[in-house]
Amino acid sequence: MDREKKKISRRQAIAVTAGAATVAGLGPTAASASATKQTMVDVVVVGAGFAGLTAARALRKAGRSVVVLEADNRVGGRTKPATLAGERIDIGGQWVGPTQTHLLALAAHYGVTTEQQYDFGDNVIDICGRKARYKGETPGLAPADLEEFGGIVAKLDSLAGEIEMPRPWLAPSAAEWDAQTVESWIRANTTGEPTREMLRGVTRAVFSCEANEISFLFYLAYIASAGSLEALIGTRGGAQDKLFTGSVWQIAAKMADELGDAVVLGSPVSRIEQDKDGVTVTAPNGTWRAKRIIVTAPPAMAARIDYSPPLSARRDGLSQRMPMGCVIKVAVAYKTAFWREQGYSGLVVSDRTEFGPWFDRGTTLTKGGALVGFFDGGPAQRWADRSAEERRARVLDDIALYFGDAARSPVDYVEEVWTLSEHHRGGYVAVPGPGVLTGFGSALIEPVGRIHWAGTETADAWVGYIDGAIRSGERVAADVSALV
Amino acid sequence: MDREKKKISRRQAIAVTAGAATVAGLGPTAASASATKQTMVDVVVVGAGFAGLTAARALRKAGRSVVVLEADNRVGGRTKPATLAGERIDIGGQWVGPTQTHLLALAAHYGVTTEQQYDFGDNVIDICGRKARYKGETPGLAPADLEEFGGIVAKLDSLAGEIEMPRPWLAPSAAEWDAQTVESWIRANTTGEPTREMLRGVTRAVFSCEANEISFLFYLAYIASAGSLEALIGTRGGAQDKLFTGSVWQIAAKMADELGDAVVLGSPVSRIEQDKDGVTVTAPNGTWRAKRIIVTAPPAMAARIDYSPPLSARRDGLSQRMPMGCVIKVAVAYKTAFWREQGYSGLVVSDRTEFGPWFDRGTTLTKGGALVGFFDGGPAQRWADRSAEERRARVLDDIALYFGDAARSPVDYVEEVWTLSEHHRGGYVAVPGPGVLTGFGSALIEPVGRIHWAGTETADAWVGYIDGAIRSGERVAADVSALV
Repeated sequence: MDREKKKISRRQAIAVTAGAATVAGLGPTAASASATKQTMVDVVVVGAGFAGLTAARALRKAGRSVVVLEADNRVGGRTKPATLAGERIDIGGQWVGPTQTHLLALAAHYGVTTEQQYDFGDNVIDICGRKARYKGETPGLAPADLEEFGGIVAKLDSLAGEIEMPRPWLAPSAAEWDAQTVESWIRANTTGEPTREMLRGVTRAVFSCEANEISFLFYLAYIASAGSLEALIGTRGGAQDKLFTGSVWQIAAKMADELGDAVVLGSPVSRIEQDKDGVTVTAPNGTWRAKRIIVTAPPAMAARIDYSPPLSARRDGLSQRMPMGCVIKVAVAYKTAFWREQGYSGLVVSDRTEFGPWFDRGTTLTKGGALVGFFDGGPAQRWADRSAEERRARVLDDIALYFGDAARSPVDYVEEVWTLSEHHRGGYVAVPGPGVLTGFGSALIEPVGRIHWAGTETADAWVGYIDGAIRSGERVAADVSALV
Repeated sequence: MDREKKKISRRQAIAVTAGAATVAGLGPTAASASATKQTMVDVVVVGAGFAGLTAARALRKAGRSVVVLEADNRVGGRTKPATLAGERIDIGGQWVGPTQTHLLALAAHYGVTTEQQYDFGDNVIDICGRKARYKGETPGLAPADLEEFGGIVAKLDSLAGEIEMPRPWLAPSAAEWDAQTVESWIRANTTGEPTREMLRGVTRAVFSCEANEISFLFYLAYIASAGSLEALIGTRGGAQDKLFTGSVWQIAAKMADELGDAVVLGSPVSRIEQDKDGVTVTAPNGTWRAKRIIVTAPPAMAARIDYSPPLSARRDGLSQRMPMGCVIKVAVAYKTAFWREQGYSGLVVSDRTEFGPWFDRGTTLTKGGALVGFFDGGPAQRWADRSAEERRARVLDDIALYFGDAARSPVDYVEEVWTLSEHHRGGYVAVPGPGVLTGFGSALIEPVGRIHWAGTETADAWVGYIDGAIRSGERVAADVSALV
């Protein structure tokens, strides 16, 4: 961590200098009436997550001047580094799957390597009072339940096949799908309680929200954006296929290093003013003037910026209707990966615990000795406002339920309550309820004057993932560089 | 309007004086580190709508010092005055019903009188291609449709009877009701398209949103809070029973006059900081220090304030999940009430128009000559970003469809696009989707440290109405005066 801390301090120092030493803004605007000097650039990017950094990198490559204003004191957005038992891990976004080609290409460019997610040994499933050990990707349900669940997965994939991203609201059945929640659909289309609980658990694990909150159209769009439900929930060959040696976050850090002073940390943008000549952007540490602005914050966070003139009805309405999922990520280190010795893979899916699912945090290359898991949706909402001690006790109790008392003696423990994190207030992704995509969806990407929108929510593929964030950054950079 | 404008200027002048002339804040806080003088009071109230003004009035009566910080340059919140053909009208909240006893009592206290909403002559209903004229409160549907619709209304009232306000999430069937939209429920419980269209139209007219957006539990809770569906949609004896002579808004203005300098207009609160001794409240025109703060802005607008420490996960999560309905209110004046001459009451409910429903704006006492109506839900969302000219043309076309070409020659025309209004971004009320009340509902009222919440969304009766706002102001004043 120390190396990172030093880097951040250096960047903050640069930010202050940059704010003071640059030329005054274009013409008279409300903000320039004050004594503050303005920094002039072609494009301001709000947010130094993967979307913002990718966009800034592409714009600079295209010869445009940029500044990336990041509210937090670090880059990475919904990826974040932590140290667990001396090892660098991701306490935000972590995995990569084989079709997440934009993230894989970026990692390759920076020489960051991947390792297979450990998935040997038995997974555990414990749903509706029936506990089973199973190997591989097919959940260990009773045969009749597995048949129903398999049929439902095939049906969901087939329905998702009718959607063309990134405009799910144009699908022939969009109105019908967007009029209901995932829970309504589950109740109408399944009979077995294990299938229902599986689907609720999948919603929690994939979307960090409850099945009763989320639009069935959005659920299908998410499947479409990933290619299949299997791609979303699978380990081997799915979205949890591989980890990055030394964290995925370091890729963001490397992009930021390349951008140098153009990344200004600790700059929560409070106001965006448009006029006929450009945009004035205000943060507590400076004012910037640009031709265009790219906002990569998810809609619910972007809504907390003050806009002049106010946003369109459609965009403001959208931003009131795209709440963040609720999530807490936890990593626990042990002296040994004792579950491996008992023949377990580390993966546990259970409806008896608040914490979960959890996975082995090691890889096929390391000895492991760590687990990583989530409070998602309802459990995250219930546990976020409790003390860290209470959460820790609950996590260890939950793990002990399956792996025994050894689980109660970790050597290290790290958590990130994303739902409390000031500039995120949730994760992994914005989760619209019914009626939102068909009513307001086009405002996700449609610019409002000189304001362009990016972020994983706006992706045409892998919405909600790092890969989608990168794709959105590339798309918006192309859009904007054609205009400035 | 001139008299009001002068009053507002006087209040703004007082605000500036008050900000400069008062004592410095309690002890050292982040905000008081600056040179700004702080005003000290027992309680800061955010918002000078009916909730905030009622709370401030009650607190002052209980001997507490208060300041009411209003973002806008006028009081009244979701009520607002306008002048139509020289007459004062309401271009926000307008009506009162017989069980809205708190509003009626407040009006009586200030000597503001009511007049019966004009409802003589024939109403028009035009649903699913069948147009009919009818008298009174029973919609002019075909007999079979009327039977189904009547049965559904009785069923909705009966389900709503299982709810105890203000905690609908405790109802025995809350989980089931909150897992679905109103649209899902309609599709599962009705067969006739006219019944369905009626219910969709009722949702639009009562909630300013589409049936596919809104939680069925919230819909039932709203019915419970009003007493019956009939109370919500009815004219005679219902929520549209009477108008106020000279506007309902003047009651807010009278409360504000009584509060004098304690009401500070043009004060959009940007930050609320809590510490162990009190609260520091920042707006562009001053800083206030108080023991407690009451926020009456609806959750989606309250979310745009910066909180230190950040709000709890539950409250922030709620505030991301309570979007405002979409609404545009329009009033049109004519030389004569020509529809009355044709035997019409003025009320038109149609699924062929974007504008509507509309009502006669006159009363039983006046000659009328005016109509008032709404773009609600989807139509409001579609029309808010278009030009005023386009909206006007559409309104007149829609009225002409039923009342003839005379509708195209108004003598005056006024509109309020609430969905664009900077400090409201919608109306009449916050409309939670599925999963919100059961997951986050308790955060509607639960204080977060020294922050207390009011506003019509938090009412125990008549949620969404002026009456509910008053009730919430009385409740929160009692809660807070017990603590300061």
